[in-house]
Amino acid sequence: MNSGTTSIKALTFDVFGTVLDWRTPILREGKQLGKTKGLAVDWGELADVWRKGYQPAMDRVRRGELSWTNFDALQRLILDEVLSEFGLASLGEPERDGLAQVWYRLRAWPDVKGGLRRLRRKFVVAALSNGNMRMLTGVSKHAGLSWDCILSAELAKHYKPDREVYQMGINLLGLEAHEVMMVAAHKYDLHAARAVGMWTAYVQRPLEFGRGGHPDLTPDPEFDIVAADFKDLATQLGV
Amino acid sequence: MNSGTTSIKALTFDVFGTVLDWRTPILREGKQLGKTKGLAVDWGELADVWRKGYQPAMDRVRRGELSWTNFDALQRLILDEVLSEFGLASLGEPERDGLAQVWYRLRAWPDVKGGLRRLRRKFVVAALSNGNMRMLTGVSKHAGLSWDCILSAELAKHYKPDREVYQMGINLLGLEAHEVMMVAAHKYDLHAARAVGMWTAYVQRPLEFGRGGHPDLTPDPEFDIVAADFKDLATQLGV
Repeated sequence: MNSGTTSIKALTFDVFGTVLDWRTPILREGKQLGKTKGLAVDWGELADVWRKGYQPAMDRVRRGELSWTNFDALQRLILDEVLSEFGLASLGEPERDGLAQVWYRLRAWPDVKGGLRRLRRKFVVAALSNGNMRMLTGVSKHAGLSWDCILSAELAKHYKPDREVYQMGINLLGLEAHEVMMVAAHKYDLHAARAVGMWTAYVQRPLEFGRGGHPDLTPDPEFDIVAADFKDLATQLGV
Repeated sequence: MNSGTTSIKALTFDVFGTVLDWRTPILREGKQLGKTKGLAVDWGELADVWRKGYQPAMDRVRRGELSWTNFDALQRLILDEVLSEFGLASLGEPERDGLAQVWYRLRAWPDVKGGLRRLRRKFVVAALSNGNMRMLTGVSKHAGLSWDCILSAELAKHYKPDREVYQMGINLLGLEAHEVMMVAAHKYDLHAARAVGMWTAYVQRPLEFGRGGHPDLTPDPEFDIVAADFKDLATQLGV
């Protein structure tokens, strides 16, 4: 860790994947729905395709092909496409709505609650996520998380990794970039944060894409901190 | 209470005066500063004049005489004028900064923490205040308050009672006006909330302006709930 981190006043957190496990709940609820409706679907594969649809959908907003569309609406759009792809085009509206709502019922990784509690003693701890305010507020409540504040990409009408989102976060916190550390399990997020002058902490989430996921966990030497989880992050930040 | 309040999903709270006691800390810190610097000032009067300067300053933004200026910056502007008015124009920058920062060190009224904790069990509980995000985040942390989310007028670049602020809050919560209740100790705030279709809860804060303040506490028959404090509000809302 660079000794300059003593200037850090706030930590901003990526949420989906970094704080919350999205795959296990989709898998569990999908299987349940499959059982009820007699559907033969590989829900793990569906979850992964659904998640993978998210970047191209945000790119459509970024390129202006879609006018500003918040995360809730994007998720639903992606889900409809994914269901067709998996031969589930006949699934009714109530079932689609129920499935789309799974993003409000995600669970935090086991280290998150304790880690955030420790980090909040020393730092302003904020969510900085592509999720919309409604979703971030709802899922945080469901998962029992307490933030000092929630900052949604929706407030900048841009999606990460657009620099506008990080800059919006820094501005609303009333701080300078070198006073804020971005915490994420995704390298592209940290590279973009670093480009605006923020500190970066890479948290490894080996199970984000399930047991067969094998994400690239090699830390980038550009990152200021590499942590195994939020408790390790707190320890490395001296809390 | 109207039985229609069962549609309520979220409560939005005015902060300064309704949640936090601003006068006691200004008085205490002002007296302390006066002692250190040997200043003969009626700090209670100064606190009241400072607080009263806030509406006209926001009106200057509203009329476009001032471009968008956030609450932190407005407070400082008002403080400088008030200090001159009280013959304290010679007070140095560090002392001014220290005094302006008192808004980050306010305390919650005694019923607030327990009341909010109960209300959060059933409702999304959000701050909806003219304070900027930095200030609301900082003072909430200082006062030990936990919100589901913080919504600042800064996000709408309008000040309450402009309807844009209430509408921004409703939109970011992803709700309809009739699903949200505004909670405030100030009638103008509730009248504006009601005009956009929100429910209204009037909380009496007889000591906001000190023991000699005598604010008008007569409830308006238009308000859906009149509560003595946040615990009473929780009880009336069935939590």
